[in-house]
Amino acid sequence: MTNSTGSIVVSLSMSLDGFSAGPDVAVERPMGEGGERLHEWLFQGDADPSGVDTRVAQELSAVTGAVVLGRRTFDVGVGLWQDTPFPVPSFVLTHEVREQQQMKSAAFTFVTDGIGSALRQARAAAVDKDVLVMGGARTAQQAIAAGLADEIQIQLVPVLLGSGVRLFDQLGTEHIELERTRVLGSPHVTHLRFRVRR
Amino acid sequence: MTNSTGSIVVSLSMSLDGFSAGPDVAVERPMGEGGERLHEWLFQGDADPSGVDTRVAQELSAVTGAVVLGRRTFDVGVGLWQDTPFPVPSFVLTHEVREQQQMKSAAFTFVTDGIGSALRQARAAAVDKDVLVMGGARTAQQAIAAGLADEIQIQLVPVLLGSGVRLFDQLGTEHIELERTRVLGSPHVTHLRFRVRR
Repeated sequence: MTNSTGSIVVSLSMSLDGFSAGPDVAVERPMGEGGERLHEWLFQGDADPSGVDTRVAQELSAVTGAVVLGRRTFDVGVGLWQDTPFPVPSFVLTHEVREQQQMKSAAFTFVTDGIGSALRQARAAAVDKDVLVMGGARTAQQAIAAGLADEIQIQLVPVLLGSGVRLFDQLGTEHIELERTRVLGSPHVTHLRFRVRR
Repeated sequence: MTNSTGSIVVSLSMSLDGFSAGPDVAVERPMGEGGERLHEWLFQGDADPSGVDTRVAQELSAVTGAVVLGRRTFDVGVGLWQDTPFPVPSFVLTHEVREQQQMKSAAFTFVTDGIGSALRQARAAAVDKDVLVMGGARTAQQAIAAGLADEIQIQLVPVLLGSGVRLFDQLGTEHIELERTRVLGSPHVTHLRFRVRR
């Protein structure tokens, strides 16, 4: 598996009908109503004889040098993680000025001056590794709409959720051309990777 | 490539952000504004050394015994096709009672009593071949929501259109579980096939 050094990678799980979470995301429902279906593939390692899912998840950990996430993803996730989501510097896009929060593996830094600034700070912290934009959807959309995402990695989950948070939304009406650089299937999910064409 | 005999197959091209047509579909814009991008892969045969796209398109022709389409798809398509879209009996879902229309290869039959009736008539006409639900999106949604689609075949086009007609919409809020039965990639498109789990 090849991987450009220092890419900004938007990576989320998505249902075939385009949702990256169910409806009504809240602290007690971090993936929204029924949205935990989208992360089941992460916990099926033993049930996937191909080992593809485990390999993709491990690769993501190995190549990620910093993370950017939205404020709501932080709010609903931090209690679950009890740490940063990956053991690397993590930048939270927010409107609220807030002190850096040191966790066991790394720190959360709260960024109030926009997605561009969050990605710049994350890129510096990642050194030669990738920056992972892990969501939520609105944060991913901002990175893509600003033309700052180099790659989009989708774990396409074989389910129609019917409702929830649309991953690709509010992107404007200009076509954004992609090149599909990888497709790997397991019984649980299809891993699709795209390079954003400039 | 295996294929169940007599499946009802919803098959459409879709952008990564979930659109099966651009905005403002009309006779002079059958795929909507900019939506023809989604069908480019059909005309790139020579540019795909793998031959995957040609093979999938030929397979679709070979296995299809009848077609179901929506009224708007008929209205915007018939002038382009100058025939039925495939050389097989074609059933148009409409609210308007209308005489059967014989074309060169086969006939259009206009069905006014709903998707279930259109699919029943198409299945009888297809004998042991597949019924292809070719769109538009609303017709595909009705087949899926009614629990009548056996398979969903998506040509996933590597582009974010930003706006248009969402393929998967108005499906209700019950999860519909799928099994991904095929994934084939060409440089132009990713062919994904799913079986609907009952």
